[in-house]
Amino acid sequence: MPLLPRRFDRLKAVLDCRMADLTVLLEHVEKPHNLSAILRSCDAVGVLEAHAVNYSGRLPTFNSTAQGSQKWIPLKEHSSIEVAVKAIKESGFRLYGTHLGGNARDYRDCDFCEPTAFVLGAEKWGLSELATPLMDEGIFIPMCGMVQSLNVSVAAATLLFEALRQRRLAGIAPQAGEGLEPALYQQRLFEWAYP
Amino acid sequence: MPLLPRRFDRLKAVLDCRMADLTVLLEHVEKPHNLSAILRSCDAVGVLEAHAVNYSGRLPTFNSTAQGSQKWIPLKEHSSIEVAVKAIKESGFRLYGTHLGGNARDYRDCDFCEPTAFVLGAEKWGLSELATPLMDEGIFIPMCGMVQSLNVSVAAATLLFEALRQRRLAGIAPQAGEGLEPALYQQRLFEWAYP
Ligand SMILES: C[S@@+](CC[C@H](N)C(=O)[O-])C[C@H]1O[C@@H](n2cnc3c(N)ncnc32)[C@H](O)[C@@H]1O
Ligand SMILES: C[S@@+](CC[C@H](N)C(=O)[O-])C[C@H]1O[C@@H](n2cnc3c(N)ncnc32)[C@H](O)[C@@H]1O
Repeated sequence: MPLLPRRFDRLKAVLDCRMADLTVLLEHVEKPHNLSAILRSCDAVGVLEAHAVNYSGRLPTFNSTAQGSQKWIPLKEHSSIEVAVKAIKESGFRLYGTHLGGNARDYRDCDFCEPTAFVLGAEKWGLSELATPLMDEGIFIPMCGMVQSLNVSVAAATLLFEALRQRRLAGIAPQAGEGLEPALYQQRLFEWAYP
Repeated sequence: MPLLPRRFDRLKAVLDCRMADLTVLLEHVEKPHNLSAILRSCDAVGVLEAHAVNYSGRLPTFNSTAQGSQKWIPLKEHSSIEVAVKAIKESGFRLYGTHLGGNARDYRDCDFCEPTAFVLGAEKWGLSELATPLMDEGIFIPMCGMVQSLNVSVAAATLLFEALRQRRLAGIAPQAGEGLEPALYQQRLFEWAYP
């Protein structure tokens, strides 16, 4: 089927807002509805690609609520948290580990305009003890209620939308493809247009 | 069992941050994990109570991921959307209907410091045609990706945390019980302390 010009323009409009310097690393997040919701938020905010580590060795599964977002946000699998952290750090990201207490900073006091990776933990256990010391900084979303934690997809979205808010305010949220190297932009456009 | 002083202080600390003038109305949101995630976010942000309409007539169900938030956030059931809207308007709230397009305002341009009710729609269908004209204003969270909507609990949290951000900035987020009438504060404290 030939690619309709309208479809091509839509793909370009989406790539125009994508940011290679904002991402998430999901450590053992397993429920399909959470994975799906997180990829939808990544897509909405303009994240280029996401990362995951799954100790179970199983491939992450999505459900219909993903609305196909897994097609538009590649989820890169890493064999261990160490391997994942090394790769993401080498790409120049600052890793923000999410902690629910103790030695962590209020996310509203952080600057997410530099290359930022949010690291989110498992539904039941949170970030592993292995992951915690590998982070550049610990952050949390203050909660003033009785329950102890937010749903992981809610926490991910809250952080991602805050990063977008800060970048828009600073005038650096991409609008015309500035968020990607030109070669990468062309490569993605080609892959999306002719899958 | 006697109430430990520590426990009593914790209940008070939570009530100190509760706001009677921020709420959500859920129209036919049905998945237990979404309802649970939304109530957890309400609790974290300091919402006093939430509202729901369920056409199916079934009681809303939560799952274990609610972490007991349904104990701390009463979910008031209404028999129809008209009844719910009337009750909430009469309490002085402005109703913001969430729409995915058309005649709606970017949520970042709205002022949520006045009494605010966010109205969220069903996972599959969004807000009903019945609900839409009853709203004071339509709002949306801009999305710059390929998928059409956010998960409903993600949308709810994004709006609630934005309202909290604005209220903190304006210095009106309660910290010492200012968010509740003294009589209501005492009543809730009593109910929580001696259930
Ligand atoms: C449901 S929580 C894990 C709860 C676990 N019982 C614990 O104590 O860590 C799952 C993940 O959601 C994220 N999360 C939940 N609430 C958060 C908050 N208030 N601030 C930052 N991240 C949060 C974190 O990534 C966390 O690892
Ligand atoms: C999954 S959406 C419904 C999608 C449905 N297909 C439609 O077109 O309305 C469920 C609810 O999430 C909320 N929601 C999702 N994305 C939103 C956005 N970008 N802005 C505001 N609310 C949103 C709305 O309350 C919506 O009714």
